[in-house]
Amino acid sequence: MTSSPRAATALLTDHYELTMVQAARQAGTAERRAVFELFPRRLPEGRRYGVVAGVGRALDAIEAFGFDAAALTSLEGVVDADTLEWLASYRFSGDIWGYAEGEAYFPHSPLLVVEGTFAEAVLLETVLLSIYNHDSAIASAASRMTLAAGERPCIEMGSRRTHELAAVAAARAAYVAGFDATSNLAARATYGVPSAGTAAHSFTLLHDDEADAFRAQVATLGVGTTLLVDTYDVTEAVRLAVEVAGTGLGAVRLDSGDLGEIARDVREQLDGLGATSTRIVVTSDLDEHAIAALAAAPVDAYGVGTQLVTGSGHPTCGFVYKLVAREGADGAMVSVAKKSLDKVSVGGRKYALRRRSPAGTARAEVIGIGEAPASDGDDRSLLVPLVRGGEVVGRTTLDEARTRHRASIAELPRAVTMMSAGEPVIPTVFER
Amino acid sequence: MTSSPRAATALLTDHYELTMVQAARQAGTAERRAVFELFPRRLPEGRRYGVVAGVGRALDAIEAFGFDAAALTSLEGVVDADTLEWLASYRFSGDIWGYAEGEAYFPHSPLLVVEGTFAEAVLLETVLLSIYNHDSAIASAASRMTLAAGERPCIEMGSRRTHELAAVAAARAAYVAGFDATSNLAARATYGVPSAGTAAHSFTLLHDDEADAFRAQVATLGVGTTLLVDTYDVTEAVRLAVEVAGTGLGAVRLDSGDLGEIARDVREQLDGLGATSTRIVVTSDLDEHAIAALAAAPVDAYGVGTQLVTGSGHPTCGFVYKLVAREGADGAMVSVAKKSLDKVSVGGRKYALRRRSPAGTARAEVIGIGEAPASDGDDRSLLVPLVRGGEVVGRTTLDEARTRHRASIAELPRAVTMMSAGEPVIPTVFER
Repeated sequence: MTSSPRAATALLTDHYELTMVQAARQAGTAERRAVFELFPRRLPEGRRYGVVAGVGRALDAIEAFGFDAAALTSLEGVVDADTLEWLASYRFSGDIWGYAEGEAYFPHSPLLVVEGTFAEAVLLETVLLSIYNHDSAIASAASRMTLAAGERPCIEMGSRRTHELAAVAAARAAYVAGFDATSNLAARATYGVPSAGTAAHSFTLLHDDEADAFRAQVATLGVGTTLLVDTYDVTEAVRLAVEVAGTGLGAVRLDSGDLGEIARDVREQLDGLGATSTRIVVTSDLDEHAIAALAAAPVDAYGVGTQLVTGSGHPTCGFVYKLVAREGADGAMVSVAKKSLDKVSVGGRKYALRRRSPAGTARAEVIGIGEAPASDGDDRSLLVPLVRGGEVVGRTTLDEARTRHRASIAELPRAVTMMSAGEPVIPTVFER
Repeated sequence: MTSSPRAATALLTDHYELTMVQAARQAGTAERRAVFELFPRRLPEGRRYGVVAGVGRALDAIEAFGFDAAALTSLEGVVDADTLEWLASYRFSGDIWGYAEGEAYFPHSPLLVVEGTFAEAVLLETVLLSIYNHDSAIASAASRMTLAAGERPCIEMGSRRTHELAAVAAARAAYVAGFDATSNLAARATYGVPSAGTAAHSFTLLHDDEADAFRAQVATLGVGTTLLVDTYDVTEAVRLAVEVAGTGLGAVRLDSGDLGEIARDVREQLDGLGATSTRIVVTSDLDEHAIAALAAAPVDAYGVGTQLVTGSGHPTCGFVYKLVAREGADGAMVSVAKKSLDKVSVGGRKYALRRRSPAGTARAEVIGIGEAPASDGDDRSLLVPLVRGGEVVGRTTLDEARTRHRASIAELPRAVTMMSAGEPVIPTVFER
């Protein structure tokens, strides 16, 4: 949608980013040209691909990244007066390229390339990593869930199991990765994600009996609503639901028990009652494996909560933001990288393309160091301009991101649909 | 310290809460008196206790829970005009009791008891669960980390690995559970959590050599600063650090490799150079187990990131918010609970106390149903008034929560310090 939150983001930053700026300014190195790269060292264990999300939110955060008077006051004691003055006029003025929202990624994919002065680029580290690490973790889990669900819709309903604002971002990321709707009203208001919902057990328990509860819900939401049928006895509730709503009842929801078994019984009962088009919605700690296991059961839609908002075992992507090149004393750019012990990085500015067969199937993630890898006509370049001279130029709609996600997954090798643990479905190849 | 965020929280809510209100209002049941309970069915697998956090943030959220014109506009299509009008004047007017922030909890601890009309109390479900599920997951992990660290300080530095605003709440929750500081500047500004930081590898790489970087940092932050010594070669960097800063150097930081082994080498080297009071700070994917494993190593402080903000394997607590009692058609209160399949609840309004031995050691979590359990002089009542007639009455400072956390953990049986998986350190006992 168009409206996005624009609360100030500059304090969503680590203390050391500011003290580094202060030290570099005093040393005369703060204005050196610098290239930072945001990338994953690896995929979460066993995952075959990841999905980039949060790009639009990151662009919002960059635009909102500035220090107002209250923020500056809060920083007294963190940095000196000279640095506070510099921060007061801070605005990112550099260039950023990155993978488009919804794109698949692999180990070492250069998801963002941030070029500016050291001081202006280092300040964005924390908030960019926060957004990318969270939103991509959710989208990566969501993508596997929508793959496992096939044509059946998935509804995001995990708000209550994560931080109240992370929930809004999670609903957005899930939508990018193919979910059809969310329960989260702020995601509806902020990003235009379709919202949906049925009723809780508390609504049934509020009433003197189940029939009163069903009548109350149908009276105001219509027969197309979804009735929750597992508060007391499922069989009796299904009978009652059709009695109250008629055979045009929209759906019933199952939220406990052996969902596959119960869905089969309920389907048979509904059909026997003539409610052949009444759908069955299942919820209850679903993840991609549970969804896949229900493929043969007569289930029409999946509501997914906890496992979606916690990234299905991988709540963060482990992306890092590393200086890969910077200006030297002589003005020339120099590739740089940490060298000792583990966590060693590959220095140099990166370029990336997805190597594809003539039939359009992805074959490799090719990363060029210092220059773009040679491309034949089948390959697809992955870095798009996001910010130019401080101005956001790479904004897309969520629907465009959804379309890109579908296309990006569709061109991956078939192994992408395997829910079991394995290697990345395409290798990462460095070229220099 | 006092200023808290007051952005509107009413849309941080599931779609179905509002449609349930609409249906109940039409059915004439919306104004029935209701008691909701927020509680854990169990602890995360293997955990011996949990820690309540987010209480202060939840009180902020309740105060900020109201629908402005923009919010109401966004809800067109979700509920009807009559419900929108009711929402426009919504304000929680009921009573809430709960466990104080920093308190230990166990399976079925009634962490919040919310009493009001059904409509006003059901609306708070999502945001209360979001805050409690997130903040308590962080505090529960943080508490184990500070226990494992003993007298050595822990510094929270996980902002980049979680949603940018969840990061602020995580820093706050970690502080409640005994962390000494955070890297997060918004947590400093919003909640008065002390902030701290050193420098990143990028700062060293920015400079033409390590000596330049160290000199730049010491020049502006003083010799008391912490120098990061694992960018190129640790031994050479430690030598250089003491050469640049002198034997009064505050600390060195190690962020990679076998931390225990390297810390021993670095301690020996520092002592040999005369820098006997220079401290060693370690970071790099630490969790409570890694911290415990470093107990015998010459480490002076722990910086904890990813594992803290993701709850060390348990990013959410799984708290639920259930209707446990409500007014019947005759005006009398009735205990209610889901009965079919799994997820069965215990109906009735709960009270709680921690049973203690005469020596003050906790023996059991005693939960009374319908009335307060009998207490002798050694026991401690756990529910405190938080909201009375819609007014927040239970606000405490973060320092009070820290003190409570220390006291609450100190009275638990010694097994609380075991990092291995096990049963809750005290049993939960229902009395009725």
